[in-house]
Amino acid sequence: MEGGIPRAAAEELDAADPLAEFRERFVIADPELIYLDGNSLGRLPAATPDRLREVVEESWGGGLVRSWQGWIDWGGRLGDRLAEHVLGARAGEIVVSDSTSVNLYKLAGAALDAAPGRGTVLMDAEDFPTNRYVVQGLAEQRGLRLCRLASDLDGGLDLDLLRSALDRDVALVVLSLVSYRSGALLDMARVNELARTVGARVLWDLSHAAGAVPVDLAGTGAELAVGCTYKYLNGGPGSPAYLYVRRELQAELRQPVWGWFGQREQFQMGPDYDPVPGIERFLVSTPPLLSLAAIDPALTLVEQAGVARIRAKGLLLGRLADDLTNVWLTPLGFRSASPRPPEQRGSHLSLHHPDAWQICQTLAAEAKVVCDYRVPDRLRIGPSPLYTRFTEVWDAMARLREVAARRTYLSRPAGLARVT
Amino acid sequence: MEGGIPRAAAEELDAADPLAEFRERFVIADPELIYLDGNSLGRLPAATPDRLREVVEESWGGGLVRSWQGWIDWGGRLGDRLAEHVLGARAGEIVVSDSTSVNLYKLAGAALDAAPGRGTVLMDAEDFPTNRYVVQGLAEQRGLRLCRLASDLDGGLDLDLLRSALDRDVALVVLSLVSYRSGALLDMARVNELARTVGARVLWDLSHAAGAVPVDLAGTGAELAVGCTYKYLNGGPGSPAYLYVRRELQAELRQPVWGWFGQREQFQMGPDYDPVPGIERFLVSTPPLLSLAAIDPALTLVEQAGVARIRAKGLLLGRLADDLTNVWLTPLGFRSASPRPPEQRGSHLSLHHPDAWQICQTLAAEAKVVCDYRVPDRLRIGPSPLYTRFTEVWDAMARLREVAARRTYLSRPAGLARVT
Repeated sequence: MEGGIPRAAAEELDAADPLAEFRERFVIADPELIYLDGNSLGRLPAATPDRLREVVEESWGGGLVRSWQGWIDWGGRLGDRLAEHVLGARAGEIVVSDSTSVNLYKLAGAALDAAPGRGTVLMDAEDFPTNRYVVQGLAEQRGLRLCRLASDLDGGLDLDLLRSALDRDVALVVLSLVSYRSGALLDMARVNELARTVGARVLWDLSHAAGAVPVDLAGTGAELAVGCTYKYLNGGPGSPAYLYVRRELQAELRQPVWGWFGQREQFQMGPDYDPVPGIERFLVSTPPLLSLAAIDPALTLVEQAGVARIRAKGLLLGRLADDLTNVWLTPLGFRSASPRPPEQRGSHLSLHHPDAWQICQTLAAEAKVVCDYRVPDRLRIGPSPLYTRFTEVWDAMARLREVAARRTYLSRPAGLARVT
Repeated sequence: MEGGIPRAAAEELDAADPLAEFRERFVIADPELIYLDGNSLGRLPAATPDRLREVVEESWGGGLVRSWQGWIDWGGRLGDRLAEHVLGARAGEIVVSDSTSVNLYKLAGAALDAAPGRGTVLMDAEDFPTNRYVVQGLAEQRGLRLCRLASDLDGGLDLDLLRSALDRDVALVVLSLVSYRSGALLDMARVNELARTVGARVLWDLSHAAGAVPVDLAGTGAELAVGCTYKYLNGGPGSPAYLYVRRELQAELRQPVWGWFGQREQFQMGPDYDPVPGIERFLVSTPPLLSLAAIDPALTLVEQAGVARIRAKGLLLGRLADDLTNVWLTPLGFRSASPRPPEQRGSHLSLHHPDAWQICQTLAAEAKVVCDYRVPDRLRIGPSPLYTRFTEVWDAMARLREVAARRTYLSRPAGLARVT
């Protein structure tokens, strides 16, 4: 027993974990390595290498161009599975394609062009950089006013602040359901409702939420969303993203990148762009098939575990991390930089420490704990419930305590921060 | 001997082929299948499955998020190799990212925004559909006049027509170096020069040219180009595309999709978009890594064979196909729908026949020859020089003659054309 929370407590949680068996369905190349960066790149599902080999050797190598008959709507099939099992949408409302940034660009562009009388875009000043830059570019190109809401770095966006900024000039609100840094979880239903009262649209980024917390796009009246598949969905590095457009809205929106995968009778190759009425109108072109294929077996695991059970375990993991932070880390100069309790955030949490960067490097190099650093001074810890044991969180926090206590971190070379 | 061209002539060409050994470096799953659709999806290089397994199992499975240290500039490294060995550009002028359509959108958008006083975009009315649609969308969004040059379906774009359309109102000309349908090859140097005389920019699509014909972006004064990697470069289904921006032009162009991969000090995550001055400013976000990885071993083959030798063999393959068409197919109602001689086109050719669709289907289903169909009545034949034998072209044309002669094709079900 150490400092009030015995390792046995974590062992008991592991023993009672209904998702414990899922860990075996991932590749654990180094059992000693504690991986708490599932919120950045999820682990490799054990079924993925064989599935990829099949796609590469049989479908590409053997079937060659003929395999496109079965590949061409794969993004739509994955989208329907995401809709049913992960994001609470209807069939035909989600499709997998491009990157999160490109999808954000397409949907934000479409929404802005569909609201010609309105001159303001609202966003969170602390949103993930690519979201901020994409929206900034669109606003500048269209001569719109960009209003960046000053959100709390640790606590997330205050809905009163959002409410006070919403008026009938607002065309679009772009927000992340779960903050990439603090993990703060917004109330999707409440935000959608606030925006609706002034006739503004909300475009959600679900990257840090999908596969970690229940999302109910249909039930909360969400109209637009995008997100990535390589975090809690374990689709692999840079796996294609998804986009969601509420069915009733699809035909009236026209996205700016007019590609042939959105075209009616695509292979008739007609002279003018004439997009299909459905979700495929938001597609552009040929998807990166191998990266797309890797999403398939990964999604199966999330479907089988079920987001409700994943969330239930995620809350327990989060509570354990909070408790250990309180007893072990706060005395060493750490401060929680995430909302508490865990119900108010996604599956990751942030810790503030002035030496966060050095601690992160030292943990990885000397203590076999991988988490990550985010500017300016945050250690980000993302225990993905599908494969993270409670004892791993306990051990990782114990190692973190050791590293922080001895204060002999790896030093920070000038300029190195930019590649971490 | 059949109809004047003995099979032995093809056998002799195979025996003398300096690239013959390269066929063994591809997966030939069914040796009886003749694959003449390398212009649509190139074959699987034999080294690719192992390379992918390494990236998946070791780098993703073992290295996890830490592998991004080595991955993050992979698109740039591939770009530099394309520049040196395939496209005649300088280091730092090409990067692999996104899809051809998205890259076209980015570069066309950047070029248009950099020419505010000009109101016209020129393109080829017969260009590949996605190019036409993307440019149409950009022109419409910016209120520009879109001028579609009536190109010859078989012979390609007449440069006199282009010259007569070029004036000082033209901001941008978008053209494919090799036509996707007829294979017509444009004179890049001449076009660049014509455009330069009126101060217009040219954006080239190199999809059907790269890895098939020598391209000299630097030497011809090309400023902008995009293209795909899954045809003659054998990068795999939907493998990421590349984009080229001449070094002197990079800092003055700003592309419309402001993603964090273009940002200076990317991981500082600063408040405002402030793109790097170099080629990375045209990047958007996290690339689909597995699809990107597959380009690596494929590119090695092209580098080792060398584009000059690939082109030399491509010309001989084309001449053989032309000769066989003359003696065997013309009497059966076929007409060449490509420029002749082969020097005037890329590595594929088109044949016109009123029953082209049925013939294409029958060839694949009953004669083990895969080529493809393009509206309205074209059979497209793309013998990729790296792995196609001269005897395969001879055998395929013989089988094509048989199928066409007996006139008992598979019938064409209503509506099926759209998925071929």
